[in-house]
This record gives sequence, structure tokens and C-alpha cells, in this order.
Amino acid sequence: MHYKKPTLLINKQQCVNNILKMKTKAELHRLKFRPHFKTHQLLEVGSWFRRHGVSAITVSSVSMARYFAADGWEDITIAFPLNVLELSEINELAATHTINILLEHPDALLWIEKELDHELGVFIKIDTGYGRAGIPATDTAAVDALIKGITKNSLLVFKGLLVHSGDTYNAASTAGILEIHQHALAQLSMLKQRYLEQFPDLIISIGDTPSCSLANAFSGVDEIRPGNFIYYDIMQFHLGSCSLEDIAVCVACPVVAIHPKRNELIVYGGGVHLSKEALQLAGKKVYGYLALLHNDGWKPLPTANYVKSLSQEHGIVHLSDELIKQFQIGDVLGILPVHSCLSANLLRNSFSIQE
Amino acid sequence: MHYKKPTLLINKQQCVNNILKMKTKAELHRLKFRPHFKTHQLLEVGSWFRRHGVSAITVSSVSMARYFAADGWEDITIAFPLNVLELSEINELAATHTINILLEHPDALLWIEKELDHELGVFIKIDTGYGRAGIPATDTAAVDALIKGITKNSLLVFKGLLVHSGDTYNAASTAGILEIHQHALAQLSMLKQRYLEQFPDLIISIGDTPSCSLANAFSGVDEIRPGNFIYYDIMQFHLGSCSLEDIAVCVACPVVAIHPKRNELIVYGGGVHLSKEALQLAGKKVYGYLALLHNDGWKPLPTANYVKSLSQEHGIVHLSDELIKQFQIGDVLGILPVHSCLSANLLRNSFSIQE
Repeated sequence: MHYKKPTLLINKQQCVNNILKMKTKAELHRLKFRPHFKTHQLLEVGSWFRRHGVSAITVSSVSMARYFAADGWEDITIAFPLNVLELSEINELAATHTINILLEHPDALLWIEKELDHELGVFIKIDTGYGRAGIPATDTAAVDALIKGITKNSLLVFKGLLVHSGDTYNAASTAGILEIHQHALAQLSMLKQRYLEQFPDLIISIGDTPSCSLANAFSGVDEIRPGNFIYYDIMQFHLGSCSLEDIAVCVACPVVAIHPKRNELIVYGGGVHLSKEALQLAGKKVYGYLALLHNDGWKPLPTANYVKSLSQEHGIVHLSDELIKQFQIGDVLGILPVHSCLSANLLRNSFSIQE
Repeated sequence: MHYKKPTLLINKQQCVNNILKMKTKAELHRLKFRPHFKTHQLLEVGSWFRRHGVSAITVSSVSMARYFAADGWEDITIAFPLNVLELSEINELAATHTINILLEHPDALLWIEKELDHELGVFIKIDTGYGRAGIPATDTAAVDALIKGITKNSLLVFKGLLVHSGDTYNAASTAGILEIHQHALAQLSMLKQRYLEQFPDLIISIGDTPSCSLANAFSGVDEIRPGNFIYYDIMQFHLGSCSLEDIAVCVACPVVAIHPKRNELIVYGGGVHLSKEALQLAGKKVYGYLALLHNDGWKPLPTANYVKSLSQEHGIVHLSDELIKQFQIGDVLGILPVHSCLSANLLRNSFSIQE
């Protein structure tokens, strides 16, 4: 239990619980479950999905696709607008694997025409309100034109329409998340009706963890691609997607200084371990909640105790009068991360799986 | 020039300019120059310092100390409150290298007593107002007691007092930075007077890049440990520590989508490449400024163009009407990072040195 350096503790049982819960939900709603592996980026965590019947996955970069393909994952959607500069790497993968890419810009077809030798599945990236990538769902002329371009290339197989409702992360309440979700479904249903006759196998794929965790209506949806749910984090906790106990990762951080007058501890654990992602809550910035480590895992502390600031390697932790007395330098404190995807990325070479 | 993935471009000549400027300033003020290597964390960048006469360095973790020690750096200050859980690693390093540690909590002496076999230099970490680590400069009783404890251990050599005025990063103006710097110097001078008779070789060591870049008075100071100045970044630009042209790193990011109606591009380059550090400027969040790449380097664009949002792998870039017309997918855009230490840490395996 004495982790000398910041270490991502991964509670395997909780991860499996989170997988089974999402998988059961997908089955209930007859949705294909294509989990996003960008959150964990670890072969071992991937193997837990495989053991529970998952065979198709999502990733967010060509590098990640190569990493999981080398471990035997054969059906991979690269859910990121095609980076045409990596077409040769994608082409190489497509020679031996089922690879789906995302398109939104017609110019990508010119690059594909020149560089592709193997069959690729294509989803069109649709924006239902997030305002990041994708063709706006209302711009059917642009979708029509892109589909036309895709079908002209005999190596491209048009698979369907793909959305990431990342705007749910900005919702003020569960009701707000469900409203964004319903709005996305309504727009996708209209598009589905438009293209279903021509493409009877058209797949509507949605992805965000808040919607997939909270919604109980998936009308018109064929596939879900949540990623964060494997670990969850305190951002998801505040969105209502999970409880603190559902969070399956915790960063072990050694205590290096104690300032009882300020109710503060300094831990070895900073922005290069946790990421600088913060929550703005009632006028204060929160960079993590806390947990007491024990032999079998950890126990969350009340949320009045939190990480108030991070620099490169230091974290400043606020603790109640009562708790601060319990710590000494050389103790190890647990931090529940704000955004587990980013913390897990930073700690890919420093993690410990708790069986 | 076609970087396929987010890549940290390092302008060697600008780095050398930044080194020489800071080194000259240190010499002018008769200060020992012990640069902090946490910003770059690269042996090759370290070699540029070595070539310009630097032989003593600062790092912020034991891992970093080991990394540079293995490359022949023989005099290293680990400027982080001693992590007692890593004492065996420090002890091992101290067998063959000159290692200085930072102490602030008396309990650390008990651990040292048990585990140390080799001589270690010790700085006491002093807090002159930042409110992170360190004994408040006004708490002379605590400093007295800690010095007493240090001198009782024959393997510990008391070296001096060390401050990081990180509060300069929150200053509203150059005048504010200089005021914080002067306030730190005043407190350190009082402490120096208190201990100089007993310890005639006492070293007063200060560190932050804003003070070291902007101040022209270093009364009572013996050593400076700036780190960020090797690369600088747009946070330092806004603090007045550097010009945009002084920034020696730029992240090359492929353009993957274009939304002219929104004046936005999407690049492959997100929080896992740049970090989520943001500046809050006149009601908008800025995650980076932009630069046009050319064969020999890059040229900053006007700061009305900026990175407005980052997710894990995506960046959303705002561009003027005129500029957005000039980009196509497959182009590569340069991003000047908000906080180069964090971006460089994330891109340690994806960088390119521009000779």
C-alpha cells in the first residue's frame, strides 16, 4: 500500500461491474456495444471487456487503433475525423482488420482516392449540437453530397451516422442531459428516415457516457460507444452518471508536507499525474476528491475535502480539522480524479490493478 | 514539415538564446545559475546548457534526478519537499552524486536518520507568500528548530533557504510581479541576516521564471533556478516575461476538419498533447495561440486567433475570416502552448528539434 510515486489504482471488480451494467443496458435496448478504449488505453483492461463478450471497439487515434489491433482486436472504429496524413497507417491496418473511419469533409475523399488499397467502413460524423466536429444534422445537403462521394469509391463501405453529444458535459442537471440526448435522437431519427431505404443496414451510433449512463430511451439508435464509464470520475459524479463508489480509479499520492493552520496537505501528485482539468463548483475550483486507501482498495472521504490546486508535481489538498490531524508525511492519500481519461493517459506507465 | 501527429517542435537556436540571456543575467548579478530541468526533461536540451557552462541543475522529482544523473549531471537539487518514501533511491544517488534535498517538516529527519548512509545537501523550503509548500518566512522558530535538527545529523549539510515565488504567476501586471519579488527578497534578507553568522556559506535560492526574467534587483540572492524560460509559453507572454517570438516551442497539429461558418478548425491536438491548462482572458478561455509553420520554424499569428477548446484528442481553433480560407484538411497548424512544461511533458515521446 506504500506507493512511492503517484500511481493509478484500478479496481478491477468495479471496472467489471461497470462493464456488465453498461453491457446489460445495451442488450436490453438491443444496441450494439462498441466501448471506447481511449479512457483506459490498456491491453489488460481491454481483456476484461473481451472476457465479457465485447469484440468491437472504438478508439480516438490511429496510434490507439494500432495498439489494440496488435492485441487481437479485429473490429475497430477510429472515432475521430479522418487525419488524412495518417492514411498510409490506416491503409496498412485495413489490410488485416475491420476498420471504420469518420468522415465529415469532402476533401478527405480525394486523399482516400489516392492512398487507399483496402476496404474501409465509413461513418459520417454528425453534429447534433455539441459544436465540435461533424456536419450539422440539419445540413442534409452536405450529408447527401458526402454519401454520394463515399458510394463512388468501391473500397469505402458507408456504415452510418455517428454522433458524440459532448454537450451533455455542460448540462446543468440530469434533466438537461436527457434533453440533449432526446434532441440528438430526434435529429438522428430524421436522418435515419432519409437514408434508410437506400441503406437498410444504416447504423446510428452515439457515444457519450452521461447519455449512455442516464438515458432509458434509445429510439432509433443502433450502437453505443461510451468510454469513460469503465472508470467514471468526479466529473461524471457531478453530472449524476455515477456514484462516488462507482469510480473505479484512484490516484495514490504520497504526503510530503502538512500545513495544519491552513487545513492543507501537500502531496506528490500534480498536473503531470492528474491533469489540470478542474470542476468549478460554487465558486471554488476542484481538482479531485479524496479517499482513504486500505489494503483492498479505498474509501471516498466526504467531498468537503478536496484537491484545491495543482502545479506540475505538487497537489494542495484541503482537509477538515479532524482529518488533517490523522495524516503524517510518508502517508499515502487517494485522489479521485476529475477526468479519469486524462489521468489514466498520464499514468499509463504508473498503475496498479487491484484484483 | 508534414507532421502526421501532434509533435512538439523545439527551436534550438531560440532555446540557446534563452539560455544565454538568463546566464548573462545571472553572471551580471553574481548569481549561481542552477536551471530547472523539469520544463524540458530531455537529455539533448540539457546538453545545450552543458555546452554553455552549466554544471548544476534543479529537478522536481527523484525520477528526474535519476534520469539526468545517468547522463552525467553530478550536482542536482531536487526542489520538491522530500518524499520520504523515496529515500532509498535518494540515498543510492547520493552515493555517487552531489544531491540537495528540500526539507520543511521535522518528521522527515526521523526517516533520514533511519535510511541515509551518504551525505546530502539540505535546503529549507521557505514560503514567502505563495501558500504552497514551505515554512512561512515569518515562522523563524520553525526554521530555527529545523536547522537544529539538520545540524545534528552528520550526513546532512545545511546549504541554505530556497523559495519558489509561484505567486508571481497570479500577478496582474509586471509591477505586481516585481512587488512579489521584492517582498520575497525582503523576507529572505531578514532570514539571511539571522543565519549568516552561523552559516557563512548560506545560499539563498529563488526560482520562478517571471521574477528571474523581469527583475533587475537580486539583493541577498545567491542562486536562481528558473526552468520555464528555456521554452517560455503564452502564460509567460501574458505575464510580460517574454515576447511571442521568444517562445521556443510550438506544437504541430494536423487540421482534420474546417467549419468556416463558425470560423473554426478542428485539429488533431487535444488535452493529451497540450494539457488542459488555460488562460482566462477578457471573458474567454484560451488554450493556445497559433503559428504558421514554415520550413525553418514558425511565425506567430495575431492573438485574435486562438485555441478555444480542447478535448482528449481534438482542439477547436478560432481563426479570422481571412485566415480560415487559407487552410485545408491535411495542413499542419502550429499551436503555441499555454504552459510549455505540461505540453513538453505530454509530448516527451513526440518532439522534433529544429536545428
